[in-house]
Amino acid sequence: MSLVPRMSDLVYRTQDAICAALTAVDGQSFREEAWTRPEGGGGKSRMLEDGRVLERAAVNVSVVSGTLSPEAAAAMSEGRAHAKDLDPRFSAAGISLVLHPRNPFAPTTHANYRYFERGPAGQPQAWWFGGGADLTPSYLFDEDAAHFHKMHKVACDRHDPAYYPRFKRWADEYFLIPHRQERRGVGGIFFDDLNDRPPEQLFALVESCAAAFLQAYIPILERRKDTPYEAVHRRWQELRRGRYVEFNLMYDRGTKFGLSTQGRIESILLSMPRTARWEYDARPASGTPEAKLLDVLRTPRDWV
Amino acid sequence: MSLVPRMSDLVYRTQDAICAALTAVDGQSFREEAWTRPEGGGGKSRMLEDGRVLERAAVNVSVVSGTLSPEAAAAMSEGRAHAKDLDPRFSAAGISLVLHPRNPFAPTTHANYRYFERGPAGQPQAWWFGGGADLTPSYLFDEDAAHFHKMHKVACDRHDPAYYPRFKRWADEYFLIPHRQERRGVGGIFFDDLNDRPPEQLFALVESCAAAFLQAYIPILERRKDTPYEAVHRRWQELRRGRYVEFNLMYDRGTKFGLSTQGRIESILLSMPRTARWEYDARPASGTPEAKLLDVLRTPRDWV
Repeated sequence: MSLVPRMSDLVYRTQDAICAALTAVDGQSFREEAWTRPEGGGGKSRMLEDGRVLERAAVNVSVVSGTLSPEAAAAMSEGRAHAKDLDPRFSAAGISLVLHPRNPFAPTTHANYRYFERGPAGQPQAWWFGGGADLTPSYLFDEDAAHFHKMHKVACDRHDPAYYPRFKRWADEYFLIPHRQERRGVGGIFFDDLNDRPPEQLFALVESCAAAFLQAYIPILERRKDTPYEAVHRRWQELRRGRYVEFNLMYDRGTKFGLSTQGRIESILLSMPRTARWEYDARPASGTPEAKLLDVLRTPRDWV
Repeated sequence: MSLVPRMSDLVYRTQDAICAALTAVDGQSFREEAWTRPEGGGGKSRMLEDGRVLERAAVNVSVVSGTLSPEAAAAMSEGRAHAKDLDPRFSAAGISLVLHPRNPFAPTTHANYRYFERGPAGQPQAWWFGGGADLTPSYLFDEDAAHFHKMHKVACDRHDPAYYPRFKRWADEYFLIPHRQERRGVGGIFFDDLNDRPPEQLFALVESCAAAFLQAYIPILERRKDTPYEAVHRRWQELRRGRYVEFNLMYDRGTKFGLSTQGRIESILLSMPRTARWEYDARPASGTPEAKLLDVLRTPRDWV
């Protein structure tokens, strides 16, 4: 039996809850664009640009089905032994969000939960879950990183105490920018191709993690959004956003897959920050808050 | 006999001439960082940031030799039948420049000329030239595009009238951003893996093209650099710079090769603009100057 209908229900409910909570903080509502694919399914992109608190925010849902082109099937099989030589028909449901606050002391965050099936509709030949949530501060506050990790650990522990340590390490590996030898942020949890338990159990895990996101992020946003800042902090934030762009365009699996398969460009690139900056060899002096962040991006820490 | 010493001389002379001309326009001098590689060779990165006319400019030379790692050799062989199964030793000399003016009416430009040999030093088993120059306006002035193309056509025609049409089409193909179905700019000339004539003849072609760059670009920069502009023009320029970032990080052969082979990161990423911007579905109204640019990026025009 397919889990797509239940996952679809979960991602749409999560989208509503997250957008409502963010609108309560920002004051501005999300703009929605509903779209459909000729082949089957569709989604809702919700975005908020130039808000009081959020400079750019996107909370996207897609619930789609169809037949993968040979190129898309090949792109999907890359690094996925379990996805080779499968029926090209697929169904999928997922939510993906990226929030770029305006205040340089308020961290950027990203979360994504998705479920994928291959085979005829309703009779999956193979299935898997993927997802996670991670935090990308420009200025590091230990208590923020610890809180974000803690809330996700609590959600994971409810299902298996082995999950959080495994997913935390996975995030530290996944969010590496190889050419910088830095991680994109202070991590969180990440998993992909998860199908080593009965699907019901993994669905319950994903449901808990998705529900944890608001508890993990909103308190951090609330306490940093009105911090006074100056041009130097904004500059550093934009330099860090440049790294975010580098990671997403060069290494992020979802972005690469989406763009290589002619996905919905504007929805995929809603992960980009509103502004970014590059300067030559902009290395902070040692002992500064900027240098403190870089230390942690180079050597991930245990936060819980 | 190796052409590396002559190419080295050419690229260093060209770097001096271009930096001198740009400093004369901007008023600010270039900062230089000389570097050496433990394995052999080195280069000079010259950059000018936050100038009066140039917001970010880089003119880099590298003259290097060594032994390609298996990964680098594989990355280089991709799409290059002539570079498969060659001796991993290499020598190369090249110049690469990217100029991002501050004024939104002054176009960004890029040029790159390089020579590559594989085999023992001084006894190349295989060799090729690559390079070109292209123009990336945010606002299109037909006379600028025509002048830039014309100067490069004159340089090419001196050697073979078949060159310019071939290299112009090649640029239109190479600078495509597939996921946008737009070109990065109005093109120019582009060639790679050129080894179908005696090396002396191709060296002479590259010498002419490199010499044409200043005649092609400086008059355009001079006539646009002080154009009055407003915030809307700057916003559009930053959105277009976002596309520049997308092309360079996702598709540019040199950037990808450099980053995948642990090249000198800060020199490679000097091609990034100082600032860039992303907004959701920022489509200009038809009939506007912004829309006129997009038309040409979608359907390249013959300029000469």
